[in-house]
Amino acid sequence: MDVDRTAAAIADMSIRGAGRIARAGAAALSHFADNYKGNDLGGFRRDLEGAKATLLGSRPTAVSLWNGVQASTKGVGGAKDLGEAIALVKANAAAFIDASEKAVGVISEIGAKRICDGDVVMTHCNSAAALGPIIEAHRQGKAVRVYATETRPWRQGLITVRQLAEAGVDTTLIVDTAVRSVMKRVDKVFVGADTVTSHGALVNKIGTSQLALAAHEARKQFYCCAETYKFSPMTLFGDMVTIEERDHGEVVGRDEIPSSVKIFNPVFDSTPPRYIDAIITELGMISPGSVYGIMVGQLGEEAFKVGGRK
Amino acid sequence: MDVDRTAAAIADMSIRGAGRIARAGAAALSHFADNYKGNDLGGFRRDLEGAKATLLGSRPTAVSLWNGVQASTKGVGGAKDLGEAIALVKANAAAFIDASEKAVGVISEIGAKRICDGDVVMTHCNSAAALGPIIEAHRQGKAVRVYATETRPWRQGLITVRQLAEAGVDTTLIVDTAVRSVMKRVDKVFVGADTVTSHGALVNKIGTSQLALAAHEARKQFYCCAETYKFSPMTLFGDMVTIEERDHGEVVGRDEIPSSVKIFNPVFDSTPPRYIDAIITELGMISPGSVYGIMVGQLGEEAFKVGGRK
Amino acid sequence: MDVDRTAAAIADMSIRGAGRIARAGAAALSHFADNYKGNDLGGFRRDLEGAKATLLGSRPTAVSLWNGVQASTKGVGGAKDLGEAIALVKANAAAFIDASEKAVGVISEIGAKRICDGDVVMTHCNSAAALGPIIEAHRQGKAVRVYATETRPWRQGLITVRQLAEAGVDTTLIVDTAVRSVMKRVDKVFVGADTVTSHGALVNKIGTSQLALAAHEARKQFYCCAETYKFSPMTLFGDMVTIEERDHGEVVGRDEIPSSVKIFNPVFDSTPPRYIDAIITELGMISPGSVYGIMVGQLGEEAFKVGGRK
Amino acid sequence: MDVDRTAAAIADMSIRGAGRIARAGAAALSHFADNYKGNDLGGFRRDLEGAKATLLGSRPTAVSLWNGVQASTKGVGGAKDLGEAIALVKANAAAFIDASEKAVGVISEIGAKRICDGDVVMTHCNSAAALGPIIEAHRQGKAVRVYATETRPWRQGLITVRQLAEAGVDTTLIVDTAVRSVMKRVDKVFVGADTVTSHGALVNKIGTSQLALAAHEARKQFYCCAETYKFSPMTLFGDMVTIEERDHGEVVGRDEIPSSVKIFNPVFDSTPPRYIDAIITELGMISPGSVYGIMVGQLGEEAFKVGGRK
Amino acid sequence: MDVDRTAAAIADMSIRGAGRIARAGAAALSHFADNYKGNDLGGFRRDLEGAKATLLGSRPTAVSLWNGVQASTKGVGGAKDLGEAIALVKANAAAFIDASEKAVGVISEIGAKRICDGDVVMTHCNSAAALGPIIEAHRQGKAVRVYATETRPWRQGLITVRQLAEAGVDTTLIVDTAVRSVMKRVDKVFVGADTVTSHGALVNKIGTSQLALAAHEARKQFYCCAETYKFSPMTLFGDMVTIEERDHGEVVGRDEIPSSVKIFNPVFDSTPPRYIDAIITELGMISPGSVYGIMVGQLGEEAFKVGGRK
Amino acid sequence: MDVDRTAAAIADMSIRGAGRIARAGAAALSHFADNYKGNDLGGFRRDLEGAKATLLGSRPTAVSLWNGVQASTKGVGGAKDLGEAIALVKANAAAFIDASEKAVGVISEIGAKRICDGDVVMTHCNSAAALGPIIEAHRQGKAVRVYATETRPWRQGLITVRQLAEAGVDTTLIVDTAVRSVMKRVDKVFVGADTVTSHGALVNKIGTSQLALAAHEARKQFYCCAETYKFSPMTLFGDMVTIEERDHGEVVGRDEIPSSVKIFNPVFDSTPPRYIDAIITELGMISPGSVYGIMVGQLGEEAFKVGGRK
Repeated sequence: MDVDRTAAAIADMSIRGAGRIARAGAAALSHFADNYKGNDLGGFRRDLEGAKATLLGSRPTAVSLWNGVQASTKGVGGAKDLGEAIALVKANAAAFIDASEKAVGVISEIGAKRICDGDVVMTHCNSAAALGPIIEAHRQGKAVRVYATETRPWRQGLITVRQLAEAGVDTTLIVDTAVRSVMKRVDKVFVGADTVTSHGALVNKIGTSQLALAAHEARKQFYCCAETYKFSPMTLFGDMVTIEERDHGEVVGRDEIPSSVKIFNPVFDSTPPRYIDAIITELGMISPGSVYGIMVGQLGEEAFKVGGRK
Repeated sequence: MDVDRTAAAIADMSIRGAGRIARAGAAALSHFADNYKGNDLGGFRRDLEGAKATLLGSRPTAVSLWNGVQASTKGVGGAKDLGEAIALVKANAAAFIDASEKAVGVISEIGAKRICDGDVVMTHCNSAAALGPIIEAHRQGKAVRVYATETRPWRQGLITVRQLAEAGVDTTLIVDTAVRSVMKRVDKVFVGADTVTSHGALVNKIGTSQLALAAHEARKQFYCCAETYKFSPMTLFGDMVTIEERDHGEVVGRDEIPSSVKIFNPVFDSTPPRYIDAIITELGMISPGSVYGIMVGQLGEEAFKVGGRK
Repeated sequence: MDVDRTAAAIADMSIRGAGRIARAGAAALSHFADNYKGNDLGGFRRDLEGAKATLLGSRPTAVSLWNGVQASTKGVGGAKDLGEAIALVKANAAAFIDASEKAVGVISEIGAKRICDGDVVMTHCNSAAALGPIIEAHRQGKAVRVYATETRPWRQGLITVRQLAEAGVDTTLIVDTAVRSVMKRVDKVFVGADTVTSHGALVNKIGTSQLALAAHEARKQFYCCAETYKFSPMTLFGDMVTIEERDHGEVVGRDEIPSSVKIFNPVFDSTPPRYIDAIITELGMISPGSVYGIMVGQLGEEAFKVGGRK
Repeated sequence: MDVDRTAAAIADMSIRGAGRIARAGAAALSHFADNYKGNDLGGFRRDLEGAKATLLGSRPTAVSLWNGVQASTKGVGGAKDLGEAIALVKANAAAFIDASEKAVGVISEIGAKRICDGDVVMTHCNSAAALGPIIEAHRQGKAVRVYATETRPWRQGLITVRQLAEAGVDTTLIVDTAVRSVMKRVDKVFVGADTVTSHGALVNKIGTSQLALAAHEARKQFYCCAETYKFSPMTLFGDMVTIEERDHGEVVGRDEIPSSVKIFNPVFDSTPPRYIDAIITELGMISPGSVYGIMVGQLGEEAFKVGGRK
Repeated sequence: MDVDRTAAAIADMSIRGAGRIARAGAAALSHFADNYKGNDLGGFRRDLEGAKATLLGSRPTAVSLWNGVQASTKGVGGAKDLGEAIALVKANAAAFIDASEKAVGVISEIGAKRICDGDVVMTHCNSAAALGPIIEAHRQGKAVRVYATETRPWRQGLITVRQLAEAGVDTTLIVDTAVRSVMKRVDKVFVGADTVTSHGALVNKIGTSQLALAAHEARKQFYCCAETYKFSPMTLFGDMVTIEERDHGEVVGRDEIPSSVKIFNPVFDSTPPRYIDAIITELGMISPGSVYGIMVGQLGEEAFKVGGRK
Repeated sequence: MDVDRTAAAIADMSIRGAGRIARAGAAALSHFADNYKGNDLGGFRRDLEGAKATLLGSRPTAVSLWNGVQASTKGVGGAKDLGEAIALVKANAAAFIDASEKAVGVISEIGAKRICDGDVVMTHCNSAAALGPIIEAHRQGKAVRVYATETRPWRQGLITVRQLAEAGVDTTLIVDTAVRSVMKRVDKVFVGADTVTSHGALVNKIGTSQLALAAHEARKQFYCCAETYKFSPMTLFGDMVTIEERDHGEVVGRDEIPSSVKIFNPVFDSTPPRYIDAIITELGMISPGSVYGIMVGQLGEEAFKVGGRK
């Protein structure tokens, strides 16, 4: 699919989901390179920048899109001729798409090794990357029991317990108020990620930071499972991750409480690096202090030059 | 009402609520003393012990009942004659009943002084003793805003926001997952108590300890508002406070999740003393380290002698 | 000196200083009792309440005055006749005055035992009760070295280093910014008290809580030296200790900075109990958790009855 | 046995052990009172002071002796005649001896309630008061497993595992280096006490504070089991608890290491109150903040008057 | 300016300031390369080492000089011929000078994004890199209020409040003793850097670590704003950052205190990485754990080879 | 020595010790390359993979072997012809062997700079890399005193005190129970490493984490001295470091305790990154957050590609 149609599809939400958006962006640049009609390197670079701008403009706050696009053009500045530049974009995009598709699988394999036979795991909300290691460990024959939080207001915990039950994992549902109380029975916490910042903080579903705090208080291990396209290069430039506030109806019916009562319904919270034992990515298990290194490795130093971002 | 009828009414739940049970026990002993037909002190003491046993047997785990009964018989061991003993029981019982009835009012006055103009307060569940100071501060003209948690699974937070709204207090409802996130905007936390132990721990509605932990992390003040009849002398004897587990239906409909999924639904959790800045009682604002001293002052040392409790 | 003249002298500041005010109040009540002309106990009690009210009205926020007055009337409610009541007030007042005068001496003796040969002590501001133990330990031949903070804005640290130098103690002056840096070289911290609250917090010269925090971080012992008349019964009733804000001129000359710049100049800060290892009083070295017990022991339970304070 | 012979027997170590020494002191004072030949109260008081001085002089640092002697003379200052004074000393001494003999039994009962079915307990060194609750819980049919530390250099842990094995408790021995590693598997820690200070610190066998620190880090409960005669009134007066240093031969053979290597072999360490969840005494389970209150209750306020101790 | 004259000017302080020194060093090497008369690569490398040694010898402890010089010679070891080597040095030096000159501007842009509308910021001492974000946020129309510390002994806080006032920022001056007290009203802390070590510690004006500690205690964000030429490669080799001690006269007049009183007047203190939320550099906002990665990226791996530094 | 003989020697333990094993693996690959008889690059790569597999199979859990082998083949995937590939392997192996042999020396030099004149250092077990800095600092004339733990059960502390005494360092032996007690007298802790994980945790002799915890509690610096071949790439892939359990006889004679008593005797424990101030390697002193960066730098990114490890 070409750049314009891809951008349109991302903008109108026909392409959704962090991973799918990112791969669509990479594929579009590959298509662009493959079909490039010009014949000088300078022109290619300019046109490529235009294509990138079009794609990024379709969802300016999408971290994964930025990663997919940027990873696909890594090293183009150093290409010696047009052919090399085109080949590079196509190879980059293919590698990104491949790694992205395999990411949850690799994270599951890595994460499963962190789960010992007999472990009790707590999880929050509903994350494929966080459930992957648990289900994989169970598949390998390890006895693993899970406490899953309800995760108000959307109650994604109900999806989680269904998925775990379907996989045959011994699962217990708890309300969110019980997190600290139950933490004493838990060995490890696995959660997913919406965004990981350049200084190693985790932005994820509201309530995540309470699991982290309670795990820290009780010396339990807290793992964040995140594909590296969740790492936000925008935060390197200082951008705050926007914490969306959602509609009141998700929390309470308007007739249940007086109209003068306000409702505050934020979607995410932020977990500081010091409560995160390790981040499990498809490139391996790292310290929150290593996020910057991964970013540079993935996108190339030139992506972070002064003025490198519009 | 006499001892037997009181005991029966407590047992069959026609008398309910920590304060009402305690006052009923005290009143029954006063009635017993007032109508005592015997004429020697030794017999009175023996019969009084019997009456106490009858009352305590009606709800053996009710901390407040134990306090009401024990406070009413304080000092009887030192009485010099039957008349003095009878008068003592009646005076004790009257004093207990009076203090108990005024307790929330006094706590509200004391607690209101801890709230400064402009303060933002967080509360959990629905506690008259915790809301009292907030409403009183508002009544005194202080600007006070409140974040109230939903308090799953029973959602007592809805009652709380209704009561605060009715009193005209600026109130915002949040889900329980948002406690740590919102704590940054808060100045002080006020919660009630189910039980306070002899070493200063607070047993209260599930989720209370998460507010305490998050308040501690952010250097916000955490106040427990508790009538002294919530102080459990049984814990002095080492008794664990029983944490009731409730029915699953309170958490989720059985058809919402697969039948293999378990539900763990504890009613209370325990907040350690180091997260409690002060306990506000009708006797004043104290350290968790002073609970033992209050207990002895209220019930007399003889209540805590070896073998003093059956 | 009689009650009215004493009250006037306290009000017009001819009697100043926490200890002197407290002793003057006690002496005035003794004089009142000694010269009482009435002849019934009920009248005496009423007139005594009037005398107390006159005295307390002369400086309503003076914790020590409240203590001196209340301690002098301890037990009067239980006196059997006028003679016993008069004798009680005179004995109480004499005991309070005696203990108060000896308090710093006793604190010095107790505190000196906490200082080991070779210890390095940090102190803040200028407190007789905090310097007493240091000078006494030095007098006993222990090698003790002191780091004294400048204590901006008033620089009372200069008084402190003069007093220590005069006593022959090895003393080093540091600026307040150096507290955490120097804490590594320190073994123990000794500070005085303006007020100690019923839940064991220390209100003292601005900056005290920074010493406490830095000592806590480095596992150094933090001692508060406080005569028990610094214990505030008002805080038991929930009163906040007023933190006075002082004139800007103490911080900076108005011509040194633009007029749009504000200055915030609070006199005291509050140190939470968890950073205080022990409070050294003339009654002994206690936990912050024991403050309530001392208060009741000093003033009698009836001072803390509901409605016991106007 | 009379005062002089008792003092001699304590001095020459024929009477040993904290509890035995304390009871011998109380018994000697009872004997003194019972055989008193004088006939005026003033003389009795003076002679009693002499008897106390004789006893205390036999082992000046023995906290328990001080407690036994002081508890026996509680209230003598308020006796109205010689007969009452004599009776008081005899009754006091008898009560102290009785409570002291029953103390470990009561502590075992109270402590056993803190152990839940299935709990894993860690203990250190060899303490009857700490093992009592464990063995009692086992006797009641609760499944309890124990990790006992070797406790170098004396290896009292070997005695502990023998006693637990004999009682049928499931016991595992670990070296002291493994405390933090094993703490993850543990629910609760139970240790005894050599001395408890007036501000709630625990002085006990070297290594105790490491268990406390590791338990605190992992949110595990840490209980100190201590008869109240371990509470040191001397610390109220500021006395440091002397930490004995012992012979090098206990640690290593002199031929195992070069002669230039020094050995530091302290017997005790000090655990701060903030790491102690509760102190279990024969009077009940209390906060470290309540130690002062217990001391005053046991010995009477007059024991702590200024100048009250030679 | 050639190498010798530059070295002399740095040595005699005609060139001062971390940034200026660094750029002078880079410019001198560019000049050296531009005017190189030899014609073989080996000779160039040897002579370049000599030039570097001359420059570094002019101020051996200047971190920024080391960075400027080392960055300018990055990659020379891999050059294939003399021309490439010369071109590389000139390009490196130009890039370093450019980035260094723009650094504060970029840091201001990045840092301004971390400041939300309505934020209250605390700052210490006087740092262009720390004030930049604040002033930029203000310029962008965000409401931002600042508490600036006096920063004894030099009182650079007076310069800070003048600069902020001039920029129109709402500013309040506080004494250094008030830092912890005021921290409750603060949202974020911004400070500059003298040096950042290879393991992420911040060496900065005395008192900085107290802000960090108090911010950590209260869960407030602490940002260090540092141009990357403040990152000390010497610390990678283990060097301690020298903490200068300055003259006593800066603290107190010698006649204000007895001559026996010493004064300790250190210039800097060290803030551990765990109190630093993020370091804002001209390359982006990073974790303290990423400092090593930045160093290698800036200077090349060969700068850190064994024996790589004289 | 060729690959097969090297593998056999590693397997039968004739080659032992982390460093020696790693160098033997590198040397074997160099020998393999040097004697390669084939003539196409593809074949060489395949055969090289076979040789690596043979070597790694000889001790699959040896981190250092994995590092030596992987470092030797770094970049082979990018070689343009057979000659370049062979030269690369030989150069890589030689560089690895050289750096590995010099590592302890470089670590000693770096670490010695962290020790100030007059410092008191604590160490645990017996590690050449940890003792190196101490002995080097002593050799440089700095006054340094050492507390060395006995390190039960093997008592390697006796070896440590012998080595330090031989080097003339002032040394004191303590039992492991005394670590927290003695920490107050200590300035810095130096320990070695068995393994360092990809997220910066330290796996080392049982008891190490107790030193770290006690150092953290008392704000003392904790340094881990580790050659980079101790960094485990396997942990990047999620592998848990196996904690060996050893024979009971090392702890206690079987006749010393009843047969029903179990013994738990783990060899290592794990110290979390937040207790480690810095890791001192032969590449410099870094944050635990920088371990991933070092790994990638040492082994090349291709070593960490998905599927890069069998």
